[in-house]
Amino acid sequence: MRVVLVGAGNVGTHLAYHLCSSQVKLVQIWSRTEVSARTLGERVEVPFTTTLDDLSADADLYIVAVPDHALPEIMSLLSLQRDRFIVHTSAGSSMDILRIASDRYGVFYPLQTFSRTHPVRFSNVPLCLEANTAGDLALLKDFARHFSRRIYIMDTEKRKTVHLAAVFANNFPNYLYQVSEDILHGEKLPFDLVKPLIRETAMKVQRQSPRQVQTGPASREDHAIISQHIERLGRDTAYARLYSFLTQCILDSLANKNKPHDHA
Amino acid sequence: MRVVLVGAGNVGTHLAYHLCSSQVKLVQIWSRTEVSARTLGERVEVPFTTTLDDLSADADLYIVAVPDHALPEIMSLLSLQRDRFIVHTSAGSSMDILRIASDRYGVFYPLQTFSRTHPVRFSNVPLCLEANTAGDLALLKDFARHFSRRIYIMDTEKRKTVHLAAVFANNFPNYLYQVSEDILHGEKLPFDLVKPLIRETAMKVQRQSPRQVQTGPASREDHAIISQHIERLGRDTAYARLYSFLTQCILDSLANKNKPHDHA
Repeated sequence: MRVVLVGAGNVGTHLAYHLCSSQVKLVQIWSRTEVSARTLGERVEVPFTTTLDDLSADADLYIVAVPDHALPEIMSLLSLQRDRFIVHTSAGSSMDILRIASDRYGVFYPLQTFSRTHPVRFSNVPLCLEANTAGDLALLKDFARHFSRRIYIMDTEKRKTVHLAAVFANNFPNYLYQVSEDILHGEKLPFDLVKPLIRETAMKVQRQSPRQVQTGPASREDHAIISQHIERLGRDTAYARLYSFLTQCILDSLANKNKPHDHA
Repeated sequence: MRVVLVGAGNVGTHLAYHLCSSQVKLVQIWSRTEVSARTLGERVEVPFTTTLDDLSADADLYIVAVPDHALPEIMSLLSLQRDRFIVHTSAGSSMDILRIASDRYGVFYPLQTFSRTHPVRFSNVPLCLEANTAGDLALLKDFARHFSRRIYIMDTEKRKTVHLAAVFANNFPNYLYQVSEDILHGEKLPFDLVKPLIRETAMKVQRQSPRQVQTGPASREDHAIISQHIERLGRDTAYARLYSFLTQCILDSLANKNKPHDHA
């Protein structure tokens, strides 16, 4: 299988690293910027280009790993034969956005957080796949197995829900880690203090539902400690408002515990 | 060293488990309720009681691991000699609350989340210690080394700040995991999908500052995706309000990035 990678950002970079140690042949890398194309191309020893018209015409799969907002433009500029199989890697964009460029299209969305400096092991990464024909879905599944055993077939709507859930599982908790670090540093205490706690909290929910392992002042309805904490943050500071808001969410969720399926 | 454990809740239970595999001798366990005292006592093969007046009089250390709200009453009921060394395990209570029961007192606060069903390895757990004399602080440090190498000496005020930071590092993220689970289950998708993401997010901040690894629509200021997500949650639902609130916090934090130390 011969693959062309369109995009050399965080996702593209990690895909390229992984492909180079797999049995799939990465034949070309494109990036809008010369330096990104060159850096990644030289790193993985794959030819690179910054010109979409120079894309290899006969690859089996074109993976477009660019930011959502850049997808429509890139698609309109691609000049491949319409029988070339193109997928994007985006959670937030629909599959149909690719229709302008090909008759064979799909989505290969790896559900993980990618930072350029942090290595990714794909073996455990859930891959959310979609394609416009059963044949290409099968082809995409075969390709995906080179990355991970955790393969999920889902349509665009489901994938968008997964992306939304991922914001709550990743981006928001990470922001709260940042608040925790700020609070500690404000008192000249090291962030190291809470790192084992962060790890343990994440590990617990690998086996148990978060609802079952919720601890802390809000889940104990310990209003004395809650008031102390808000005082400590300084009433009417942004962090005190954040603390109050999240505490109220937990208190509400306790109150709703026995109600049938109520998200509101 | 001979230790008496007062309390058989989550913290007490894990302390007892650990002590039984250490060189410290746990000589007695007290719990208010017969069933808790018996369950833990039989499990670790240590004598137990539900009567505070029956506490062994000559232990080297009395660890009081009871909920904050129960501490004052238990202290007033203890009838030990005033030269017995008593510590509590609470983040939220001051050390001085123990003064009523003894002239030698301190705090042994293990900074971890304890669930009865989930084993705890103490070797990496930060222990926050405090004592009212240098001699007893040294004794407490010796005791703590049986648990962990990560020993922090800090006064009550610092410990309360650590506890507050822990709420942001543990309780609030865990609640957000719960929201993520709800969103997925609402669309009949498995929570398994985001588990690797949760783990990776927690592992990243073990080495890098959360600020450096923040990703997602808010940190990209991707207002199109943010609006889509809020629509998907249903405008004016509790989860949409939560999403908006946290997104605004992240946007504000980007705007404040270059300001000097501003928590507000």
